[in-house]
Amino acid sequence: MARDEHGTAELVRSGQGQDCENERNGRQAGGMRIMLVVKIGGSEGIEHELIADDLAELVRKGERLIVVHGGSALTNRVAEQLGHPPEFVTSVSGFSSRRTDRRTLEIFEMVYCGQVNKGLVERLQRRGVNAIGLAGLDGRIWQGPRKDAIKIVRNGRRMVLRDDYTGKVEKVNASLLVSLLDAGYLPVLTPPAISYEGEASNVDGDRAAAATAVALGAEALVILSNVPGLLERFPDESSLIRNIPSGRIEKFLEVAADRMKKKVMGAQEALAQGVGRVVFADGRVERPIRRALEGEGTVIGG
Amino acid sequence: MARDEHGTAELVRSGQGQDCENERNGRQAGGMRIMLVVKIGGSEGIEHELIADDLAELVRKGERLIVVHGGSALTNRVAEQLGHPPEFVTSVSGFSSRRTDRRTLEIFEMVYCGQVNKGLVERLQRRGVNAIGLAGLDGRIWQGPRKDAIKIVRNGRRMVLRDDYTGKVEKVNASLLVSLLDAGYLPVLTPPAISYEGEASNVDGDRAAAATAVALGAEALVILSNVPGLLERFPDESSLIRNIPSGRIEKFLEVAADRMKKKVMGAQEALAQGVGRVVFADGRVERPIRRALEGEGTVIGG
Repeated sequence: MARDEHGTAELVRSGQGQDCENERNGRQAGGMRIMLVVKIGGSEGIEHELIADDLAELVRKGERLIVVHGGSALTNRVAEQLGHPPEFVTSVSGFSSRRTDRRTLEIFEMVYCGQVNKGLVERLQRRGVNAIGLAGLDGRIWQGPRKDAIKIVRNGRRMVLRDDYTGKVEKVNASLLVSLLDAGYLPVLTPPAISYEGEASNVDGDRAAAATAVALGAEALVILSNVPGLLERFPDESSLIRNIPSGRIEKFLEVAADRMKKKVMGAQEALAQGVGRVVFADGRVERPIRRALEGEGTVIGG
Repeated sequence: MARDEHGTAELVRSGQGQDCENERNGRQAGGMRIMLVVKIGGSEGIEHELIADDLAELVRKGERLIVVHGGSALTNRVAEQLGHPPEFVTSVSGFSSRRTDRRTLEIFEMVYCGQVNKGLVERLQRRGVNAIGLAGLDGRIWQGPRKDAIKIVRNGRRMVLRDDYTGKVEKVNASLLVSLLDAGYLPVLTPPAISYEGEASNVDGDRAAAATAVALGAEALVILSNVPGLLERFPDESSLIRNIPSGRIEKFLEVAADRMKKKVMGAQEALAQGVGRVVFADGRVERPIRRALEGEGTVIGG
């Protein structure tokens, strides 16, 4: 695989329209071809301008890229402004997630698919990158079951929520994404996903990015947030965990805090299904993606 | 051209992947192939559920369709709620348009590309139609100049606005749209468009739909709003103008009110560049598109 001095891999293009069958799932055809999925978190402080600079540079080098982004913090602000403040619920297994009733879903789509997605597409277009913004429900890019009954714990009591639009990604429309990549576009993806019944559903962005990386046979998944990587003592940035070798993930999960556990579980799933490595890295710095590929942040697997 | 009892034309599919060169601009290849562009207005009262029913039925019949939509009324409401109320300016040539500063553009994208676009995509997906929602800036679908200085009249005085994000569509990425249609997707398009410099720009939805119909060689352009068509005495619905033959458009423009003039000028442009007919029709009724194709509303050309 051809690598330049920054440690990023370069795309060697195969003949136009040839090797279609091999390209169908994005894996390398005749020539070497790598694929990178970049997830941009939705927390405060992440620098979209710096990320767009880096993405544009990678595209110029011929890198084959898919971007996935969130929009959580801005959704919270807009929901407050629109008089429908955010609510977070805790599942019986201890994970926290956004309560997504119909009105929340509308606000969620306004922010994720509207302001954030088109903002990123415009930033990339200004840099000459032909980005194309899509939600997971467009073209059934991210499909899976909607959890029509969510068991939660509220004030110590178990409850069932039935009007929630939350789900997970089981299938990725890799064929659409590969067609867009082959035609020279940079797909910029965001939740919601779509249920098998055709309903929009809020899904975890990190897990959706991992599923996308798996479906496309990505060499690397870079997850950018507003901290330098996984932190042993969140939010103490000096407690950065530099790497977790594949063989030690299980042991690590035993001691990890809930917040970190969910992220590492996503990484574990991606690695188990063929993604080369997962890097949790800082989205507030210059060249954030290339730094991550050089090993800054928390490298899992690889 | 094969037509069913409802007066809609049916698609005769050519072989998969064949006739690529002829398909490039969407015009008929070996088999007869028609193309329909449907514009859904953004005023109050338009029934998205009924429109989605009709679109799904047309897709089941094999119709080749592209949807374009607005979101003006909802944008006004959300802009009020977010404390950045809408403002409309009048150009020196007498046309009214939305003042689109940066903050308005964000709100515009939230509503058009977020809530309305994804709401329509979900409605279509629930009906089994594989819709894919895109803004004009995605993949540079609608490209043109941004008007970096807008001459307006305010309180009787001429002024120049310089920080406005308004533009027009000069180029349509027909190749992307045709690829999506050929792969079985229904594109659902919405402003903003993109400037040649890569900036998002607010464009008139009717004119963008007309440009799309021209670029794809559409047989018909149906423009749905919350009135039965063009009205001689707006908003008196009994004053519906039933048709304007191509030869009489010029004469008609001399007497038309400003609001109607802009719409008819768009239709005139479309007809002059090869679109078969333009129908202004009611978006509040059952089977709105098929009714329009049967001649209900205002038929221009054809």
